Amino acid sequence: MGHLESITSPQDLRALSDTELDALAAEIRDLLIRTVATNTGHLGPNLGVVELTLAIHRVFDSPRDRVVFDTGHQSYVHKLVTGRHTDFSTLRKEGGLSGYPSQAESDHDIVENSHASTSLSYADGLAKAYAVREEDRHVVAVIGDGALTGGMAWEALNNIAISRKSRLVIVVNDNERSYTPTIGGLATALTALRTNPRYEQVLDLVKKRLNAVPGVGSAAYDALHAMKKGMKDALAPQGLFEDLGLKYVGPVDGHDRVAMEQALSSAKRFNGPVIVHAITRKGFGYDPAERHEADQFHAPGPFDVQTGMEKPKGRIWTDHFSDAMVEIGARRDDVVAVTAAMMHPVGLDAFQGRWPERTFDVGIAEQHAATASAGLAMGGLHPVFAVYATFLNRAFDQVLMDCALHRCGVTFVLDRSGVTGDDGASHNGMWDMSILQVVPGLRLAAPRDVSRLRELLDEAVEVADAPTVVRFPKGPPPEDIPAVGKAGGTDVLVRSGPRDVLIVAVGSMCAVAVDVAARLSDQGIGVTVVDPRWVKPVDPAIVELARSHELVVSVEDNGRVGGVGATLLQTLNDAGVTTPFKLHGIPQEFLDHAKRDAILSRIGLDAQSIARGIVEDVTARHDGLAAVEQHHPG
Amino acid sequence: MGHLESITSPQDLRALSDTELDALAAEIRDLLIRTVATNTGHLGPNLGVVELTLAIHRVFDSPRDRVVFDTGHQSYVHKLVTGRHTDFSTLRKEGGLSGYPSQAESDHDIVENSHASTSLSYADGLAKAYAVREEDRHVVAVIGDGALTGGMAWEALNNIAISRKSRLVIVVNDNERSYTPTIGGLATALTALRTNPRYEQVLDLVKKRLNAVPGVGSAAYDALHAMKKGMKDALAPQGLFEDLGLKYVGPVDGHDRVAMEQALSSAKRFNGPVIVHAITRKGFGYDPAERHEADQFHAPGPFDVQTGMEKPKGRIWTDHFSDAMVEIGARRDDVVAVTAAMMHPVGLDAFQGRWPERTFDVGIAEQHAATASAGLAMGGLHPVFAVYATFLNRAFDQVLMDCALHRCGVTFVLDRSGVTGDDGASHNGMWDMSILQVVPGLRLAAPRDVSRLRELLDEAVEVADAPTVVRFPKGPPPEDIPAVGKAGGTDVLVRSGPRDVLIVAVGSMCAVAVDVAARLSDQGIGVTVVDPRWVKPVDPAIVELARSHELVVSVEDNGRVGGVGATLLQTLNDAGVTTPFKLHGIPQEFLDHAKRDAILSRIGLDAQSIARGIVEDVTARHDGLAAVEQHHPG
Repeated sequence: MGHLESITSPQDLRALSDTELDALAAEIRDLLIRTVATNTGHLGPNLGVVELTLAIHRVFDSPRDRVVFDTGHQSYVHKLVTGRHTDFSTLRKEGGLSGYPSQAESDHDIVENSHASTSLSYADGLAKAYAVREEDRHVVAVIGDGALTGGMAWEALNNIAISRKSRLVIVVNDNERSYTPTIGGLATALTALRTNPRYEQVLDLVKKRLNAVPGVGSAAYDALHAMKKGMKDALAPQGLFEDLGLKYVGPVDGHDRVAMEQALSSAKRFNGPVIVHAITRKGFGYDPAERHEADQFHAPGPFDVQTGMEKPKGRIWTDHFSDAMVEIGARRDDVVAVTAAMMHPVGLDAFQGRWPERTFDVGIAEQHAATASAGLAMGGLHPVFAVYATFLNRAFDQVLMDCALHRCGVTFVLDRSGVTGDDGASHNGMWDMSILQVVPGLRLAAPRDVSRLRELLDEAVEVADAPTVVRFPKGPPPEDIPAVGKAGGTDVLVRSGPRDVLIVAVGSMCAVAVDVAARLSDQGIGVTVVDPRWVKPVDPAIVELARSHELVVSVEDNGRVGGVGATLLQTLNDAGVTTPFKLHGIPQEFLDHAKRDAILSRIGLDAQSIARGIVEDVTARHDGLAAVEQHHPG
Repeated sequence: MGHLESITSPQDLRALSDTELDALAAEIRDLLIRTVATNTGHLGPNLGVVELTLAIHRVFDSPRDRVVFDTGHQSYVHKLVTGRHTDFSTLRKEGGLSGYPSQAESDHDIVENSHASTSLSYADGLAKAYAVREEDRHVVAVIGDGALTGGMAWEALNNIAISRKSRLVIVVNDNERSYTPTIGGLATALTALRTNPRYEQVLDLVKKRLNAVPGVGSAAYDALHAMKKGMKDALAPQGLFEDLGLKYVGPVDGHDRVAMEQALSSAKRFNGPVIVHAITRKGFGYDPAERHEADQFHAPGPFDVQTGMEKPKGRIWTDHFSDAMVEIGARRDDVVAVTAAMMHPVGLDAFQGRWPERTFDVGIAEQHAATASAGLAMGGLHPVFAVYATFLNRAFDQVLMDCALHRCGVTFVLDRSGVTGDDGASHNGMWDMSILQVVPGLRLAAPRDVSRLRELLDEAVEVADAPTVVRFPKGPPPEDIPAVGKAGGTDVLVRSGPRDVLIVAVGSMCAVAVDVAARLSDQGIGVTVVDPRWVKPVDPAIVELARSHELVVSVEDNGRVGGVGATLLQTLNDAGVTTPFKLHGIPQEFLDHAKRDAILSRIGLDAQSIARGIVEDVTARHDGLAAVEQHHPG
């Protein structure tokens, strides 16, 4: 390597020549590819922002100036030039560097959240704070064209447009696709800006001159830039942003670092809010990524650096959902599919292939997806909106007011629920089963295996007068777990020995509960394991089972507060059932990144920990009873 | 009256002459004013849409064509012409007409939700459903310029712009102000559209011709319209909507019914998504409303029809919050105020008057408000975002991920929490204390009286490393309720007799609990009433108090599921406290509109019901204990 070792802070970038910076960019790309190939992570987005990030850090003075990355997975380059290149091999490993910005890692990081479309709001707040405090600091927000489709981004632009005192530079990283091609009218507007021919001619001219005169590139560009500036009125596209009253610079070739620096310097001098429109290519500089049709190696699994071939991986929950949707779609022509810019990640691509006219990709717009689904239902269809569990938080009000209040038959499919692990705190799907408990009429299912996924999804799309939710975790499903009996709508998975312990297991925790039961049986403790299948509303059969056991244990991969266990406890209390109750779930805190299994063990959601806890409870209870019996023999 | 009596369905409107329609409009305005003067409700918005609504119902064929009103409080005129004028005197009364559209009332109503910016998403879904089903039906969405500032509306526009098959007409009801003047870049863009001088000349010309030739107005307009159409390219403003790829018609004088009908007919014929930009005046046709500076009688209290003078009303919670904010603002120059288009309703107008540069109205944009507040906090300020409790649902993800994950000192003030009553299901603030329970680190306070409001708000703005929430209800606060003692951070309000019953009362339910205590004392039951003040996290002192009493009763004006009581029950269970527990809260269902006190009685959240329940519990328990003692004497 070479240049990267000398970069301990962004200031070191300013000492490098153009040639050295080009070499540095190549080094960075090489390190990105090699690291992600083994550690996994986001590759395409980071390859696309190498020059853009270098330019930002040469023009602005982080951390005095603040750099906010939207959907922070494109912050790897930023990490490498802010003193973290020596730790980069620990990327996404437990205790290592996060795959997102992290305040704990560096003063250069500020926004850690991976949910899209937030950067402009943070930046608006920061810039207004500096204006109120009369601090001379700039704020730079880097946002993709995909994230601009989110409503929050528009709310922010609407405010930024009138904040004349804000020293705010918005870099629109326009790669013509976020996860998948950007959807909607915004994309049309961006294309209009991108393809303005006179602009392109000027840019070409600039580039040719710069290439022809190495070493004096900057001066040559300055001259040309001045010329271009004079042509501003003739050249400036009458675009969306200017209609909102926002100053606009661009488009700029985002892989032309010199051009980017010029544009950013110009924006910085303006001392008010400015949009810099950078055109980049996701996966830039790595052939296998650039050639990758679906998503330019957005977030590949482990792969071979030379060939770009991903290591083969088994079928995950998403694949089974994908198959099930195609079967349902063939059977029911009123079923339609909705995604918020995640067609492939949530497995709706197969459905889309068969029925493109019945598939709607709304952009990164979960709110709209939920309410448009209510509209689709009112219009006589049954929409299935598949989304990562953590992103449903964005549409809570729409699920409640637009779907449930209006008794709309909309099915929400929550992928990546529970602990997801290495993407960090904001990716864990640990909130859904709590906030959805409050929604009147909503029914919530958590399949324990693939057969139940199909069964519950089939039941869900039959519900026409209320929203339904089916949630499953990341990764591969377990082998099917057959029921040994039935109680009401609840599946009995294990019934062994006396009625000492009732374990109510939710979704993916059923496999763990069956393991727990085996351990308890070995200790001579009687155990019943049940899977409610539909965890909301509470099945009355479970209330009766709870009454007839000595101890109730609930296990869910959701936050402990207000989830399935908490609601069951409340229901039992209302029913006057006083059986002792132990609740297992995710501690109500933000979890640091690590592998899923490692986290589950650490928080005690593994069979060994749960079994140990139950044995202790039962033993203590038997000791207590013995003491009482000693006291009241008879 | 006269013409209104003959209108049993919108089809009857088509038989009326222009003169009769003008007379009908006057009748409608008269009825609106007289009814709202006594029943209360939304006046200004409905006076502004009389002609617009008549035009829609003459051009489109409801309920076959669907009319969706955004923020449905401007649907009164729609109600009057869809067969409900005889019931209009029951507006907002228990069992009477809702102040919002209601599916139960009429097939002409479809969207009941009062939360803003949803109409375009519903309409997009409906229109897409009709396209998939090949049904020849139009969808009309009526949305104000204020609601367009909400991110959902932008998400929807982005999708509608590329839905060429959607027979969707978007009527932008542009009155230059929603609750308060519309904020931001969007307002700038709308102003540009509104003030295009050549357009105005054409409109003026149209109006003059029409006025000069009564009776043949329509034909004259047609001729002029054709002329105008030919001039389209020259006239069409290069506006925001067209940048998104949306067909645009306007601006049209929204009080010129004939012009509106022409514009709507033209839009209908287009058979694709079209925006019709109508300029209206809120309060139009009623002098006191038009002259009203603050909000054109948006939703006045009872008033005198002749003078427009509102009946004097006492000070409400909001007024006390308003005063407290001014005091805090004077003491702390780092405290700033944030509102989402509700400056006056949430009482931030006084703060704004003193410190305009420290006050931010972000438009109807709760998501942005929350995340921009996080940014303001990161920039060294302490923002106070005041919002109606029900609207915080919109920003749940932002409170969780942008404020709490980032440990930002942001204070949320939730007005109109609990049962609000006559505005119907979607206005009740009954969700906040449940969904906020899951947010790690967040602290939640519910003041019982004005002294506690000041005290808790002062404490809240001192918290620099976590979000804080202070919530209070609609209406006047009770007299101050002094504490008789302290346990940890908890105020003891009543301690009388033996430790039979511990009542944990939340916020406005403290006054009720004190009343309950008096009733219990009369029956010889010992009672302790405590106010936790901070209801999240649970005060350990309450766990100890629960351990030492025979029965714990929690009382909150929040949904029963997952709220303060549920979390306390869970905490007691975790701590091994097995004291019997009774949880009082709002049943987890959507509540029909009625007066607040009537609803509280109906759902058992009044002193009489709660006391009766406790007496029954205590009696049953004593009987049970007596039985046990008989069985195990001594």
